[in-house]
Amino acid sequence: MSDEKYVVGVDYGTLSGRALVVRVSDGAELGSAVHEYPHAVVTEALPGGQPLPPEWALQVPQDYREVLQVAVPQAVQEAGIDPADVTGVGTDFTACTMIPTLADGTPLSELDQFTARPHAYVKLWRHHAAQPHADRINQLAAKRNEPWLARYGGQISSEWEFAKALQLLEEDPTSYAAMQRWVEAADWIVWQLTGRYVRNACAAGYKGIYQDGQYPGPDFLAELNPAFADFVETKLDQPIGQLGDTAGTLTDRAAAWTGLPPGIPVAVGNVDAHVTAAAANALEPGQMVAIMGTSTCHIMNGRELRVVPGMCGVVKNGIVKGLWGYEAGQSGVGDIFAHFVRTHVPASYTSRARAEGLSIHEYLTSLASTQRVGEHGLLALDWHSGNRSVLVDHELSGLLVGETLATRPEDIYRALIEATAFGTRTIIETFRDAGVPVTELVVAGGLVKNPMLMQIYSDVTRLPLSIVPSEQAPALGAAIHAAVAAGAYPDVRTAAARMGHAERAAYTPHEADAAVYDELFAEYTTLHDHFGRGDNKLMRKLRAIQRSAVAR
Amino acid sequence: MSDEKYVVGVDYGTLSGRALVVRVSDGAELGSAVHEYPHAVVTEALPGGQPLPPEWALQVPQDYREVLQVAVPQAVQEAGIDPADVTGVGTDFTACTMIPTLADGTPLSELDQFTARPHAYVKLWRHHAAQPHADRINQLAAKRNEPWLARYGGQISSEWEFAKALQLLEEDPTSYAAMQRWVEAADWIVWQLTGRYVRNACAAGYKGIYQDGQYPGPDFLAELNPAFADFVETKLDQPIGQLGDTAGTLTDRAAAWTGLPPGIPVAVGNVDAHVTAAAANALEPGQMVAIMGTSTCHIMNGRELRVVPGMCGVVKNGIVKGLWGYEAGQSGVGDIFAHFVRTHVPASYTSRARAEGLSIHEYLTSLASTQRVGEHGLLALDWHSGNRSVLVDHELSGLLVGETLATRPEDIYRALIEATAFGTRTIIETFRDAGVPVTELVVAGGLVKNPMLMQIYSDVTRLPLSIVPSEQAPALGAAIHAAVAAGAYPDVRTAAARMGHAERAAYTPHEADAAVYDELFAEYTTLHDHFGRGDNKLMRKLRAIQRSAVAR
Repeated sequence: MSDEKYVVGVDYGTLSGRALVVRVSDGAELGSAVHEYPHAVVTEALPGGQPLPPEWALQVPQDYREVLQVAVPQAVQEAGIDPADVTGVGTDFTACTMIPTLADGTPLSELDQFTARPHAYVKLWRHHAAQPHADRINQLAAKRNEPWLARYGGQISSEWEFAKALQLLEEDPTSYAAMQRWVEAADWIVWQLTGRYVRNACAAGYKGIYQDGQYPGPDFLAELNPAFADFVETKLDQPIGQLGDTAGTLTDRAAAWTGLPPGIPVAVGNVDAHVTAAAANALEPGQMVAIMGTSTCHIMNGRELRVVPGMCGVVKNGIVKGLWGYEAGQSGVGDIFAHFVRTHVPASYTSRARAEGLSIHEYLTSLASTQRVGEHGLLALDWHSGNRSVLVDHELSGLLVGETLATRPEDIYRALIEATAFGTRTIIETFRDAGVPVTELVVAGGLVKNPMLMQIYSDVTRLPLSIVPSEQAPALGAAIHAAVAAGAYPDVRTAAARMGHAERAAYTPHEADAAVYDELFAEYTTLHDHFGRGDNKLMRKLRAIQRSAVAR
Repeated sequence: MSDEKYVVGVDYGTLSGRALVVRVSDGAELGSAVHEYPHAVVTEALPGGQPLPPEWALQVPQDYREVLQVAVPQAVQEAGIDPADVTGVGTDFTACTMIPTLADGTPLSELDQFTARPHAYVKLWRHHAAQPHADRINQLAAKRNEPWLARYGGQISSEWEFAKALQLLEEDPTSYAAMQRWVEAADWIVWQLTGRYVRNACAAGYKGIYQDGQYPGPDFLAELNPAFADFVETKLDQPIGQLGDTAGTLTDRAAAWTGLPPGIPVAVGNVDAHVTAAAANALEPGQMVAIMGTSTCHIMNGRELRVVPGMCGVVKNGIVKGLWGYEAGQSGVGDIFAHFVRTHVPASYTSRARAEGLSIHEYLTSLASTQRVGEHGLLALDWHSGNRSVLVDHELSGLLVGETLATRPEDIYRALIEATAFGTRTIIETFRDAGVPVTELVVAGGLVKNPMLMQIYSDVTRLPLSIVPSEQAPALGAAIHAAVAAGAYPDVRTAAARMGHAERAAYTPHEADAAVYDELFAEYTTLHDHFGRGDNKLMRKLRAIQRSAVAR
């Protein structure tokens, strides 16, 4: 035992879980360990061999327990601390990732009679087979003018709790009947740690359509399917825990798994993107946190409820207690650049990059970074994965204008980066126009390592850009919530101020470049509205022609 | 001496001249030889070292004489014929390629006092430094409502005789004053062969604004520049020779160069694209000859004068005596595919192509040819080099819509090919709408070797596609004109029917594919008009931003 106290944050990602040991006094990261899920993402067939249809993405709950058993003790050992000095545990999870369980939290997939049933398994966030069910929910909600629809930018995702549950009901009524709880994995893992089931306010709000203290009503659900009428009452509704509150204490069983002291507080569950705002110490209204990786998630607090067109959601207490938490998203960012590098860069570039000891991303960046703004003569739309915010249309696709015989790979690479920055500016301006001004962009995630990209984002948005240095920001955010749950700080905002970190205004706009980007952004907006808001249905038409070509 | 008679066609291209020995009775190609111009294209500096500004492209006249001295005897030798059995010579040339000469045809650049003056040299067709002069000619012609402007689709090119001459006058008055003739290279080479200067009706019409028996008048020229008022009278106007007529007979000097009999007839000069129609035996109205290489030139006869928007020109007797010759063009075709292969294809493709012993074009084609129409979900505009017909706008640029993370290089390659086919269909429909129907597409040039591309063109245009098998079609066309000049046939149409060849209807449209292409073409047209006809000035704006970025 020492004077210094520590907390453990556990971040559950798509392919692995990461444990991080953090010093309570200042947020120093002392040790970490990663455990990859043995079953990764189950898309082709169940572990027992039963094949899965397209668009399915499942996981196996035992993989999550193994992270507690393997990664947590390793991280503590790497930190070189006495486990007895760990005073709290916090977690965050991908969302919406859903587990059907019995009333005691046992996953259906762990019961012998259900192991061969796909619907008994965890439905990972990126399980997209419930799109028809989501479409029905959206159509009905629009028809009935449900007040909660606007809270989600006008569209409920197929990834979320209700669409996935409706699919389960209609495709496997036996599993649905056996399911006593429909549990966010974020809450299930806390249940495993504490023996108590508490729904976290974040996931319940963003993914569970929990607004103003209630869920969609039984008449709405009955209209979707009579057998769905009591879904909320019988399988979903449970006490809501606020972020940073204590969900319970570590059970003897979980203490044995983790090597941590039994009885220490465990924080209410949380979502990976949202918890990052605490790690960035960016919880004030106006501070938009952008977690930039393959896609970008935007998280920001506001004092008041506003309806922002095309946002992913607005939830009271959704990021931190007492404020309205806003979320928006760009469907494709880093994956667009990765796609370009994989499919559009010639051998001469590959070999020159290798000769210079650079990745292709680094090599293209080195070439593109010497250009003046506008020099490449290109403009792109960043819709290769569709558009979440603000158009909420996944039938959209990419577009590139301006190519000539003189266009080089680095020109297009830069234009694609700029296009994603224009996409971010579109979101920021939409928030501003809805009465939710953005004053600072705080960036976390893998793309912060590209200084050219960061400068472009600052120039395009005309905002100071702050950088989150932690490479495990979600786990740090979870640890901050653990420290609050442990009573080391009175609330998450106070804890984040001490334990969270961002390099403030690491990039600021260059006026001359920003002025040219203003011109280009005006053209981007014209294209965006022309192809995205209905003047020209070309992208939708091309998808339709493509589908019927494949079906011929 | 044998009973069989032969003619020699000499085709002057951009980088080399090719001589072809052809049997008069049936057009059989018996021998050929190529001579590369020692000075190739002069773009950086004169042979004496004097540097050239951007956009300049010059040549050296002696290089052309060397083709007569080297390639012609080689071709005759390869053919294994007795030179005494050669009964005529015909030529074709790039156009508009212009030579300033003295009254006896001596190029200014061959006079000691002019060798250091750039304006004394041959201005190759792709010398583009006279754009400001062309702009002035177009503006003035539009203002004065000159009747000839519509004959050129509304725009005179910077490549043509008047723009290049005006540049010469204004940038080098000394050379302009010394210049006694402003000569198409097509006519200069005939002058070298015969000692007689005859302007060919084709170049005079398409490049020299010679319409209805007259050139632009002195008042028009004076308004451009008072010193230009007598340009036609003093430097340009000379007797016009009809295509297939005899310009003169081979001089002793030229007979010594070529090894051919002195006194044999030499045909009036001709232009490389136009002469190909004879080689294809495609001189009837409705037969559109497309010479498809880096760009595409479209040549077709009509019985009547019609104004086709965006055509390159319509000239009475411009392709064959007695008909109106129409010309249109696509600025970029094969060079778009070459650009794609050079800059957009990853190393994995390059190495797989090599392993299979295929060029990258062949490898991409093999992958793309298994696709169903519309399967790639893409649509492109083929404006990487701007658009000649029918928009006449070189500020336009390329566009690609529909890219997703699943898009592969062969998808884009196919979409680019389809875009050029849509560009051809746009030209064909514009001709049809102007009262000049197209009933057959006759294709010559390097791209005929790609069967997938040919089938796409047939499906997209819904026309039978005929293929010109000769790999030296222009030289064959020149030889056909030589045979007519030699009196072996009464006219070019008769000669072409015997000596020209095309594989008729080698490709015909597949109805199911053509129907999908109809849908895609409708979308192409919407994009084409949106970005090309003024609803959206984006491409022009991007060029302007690019220019000011480079100038900053």
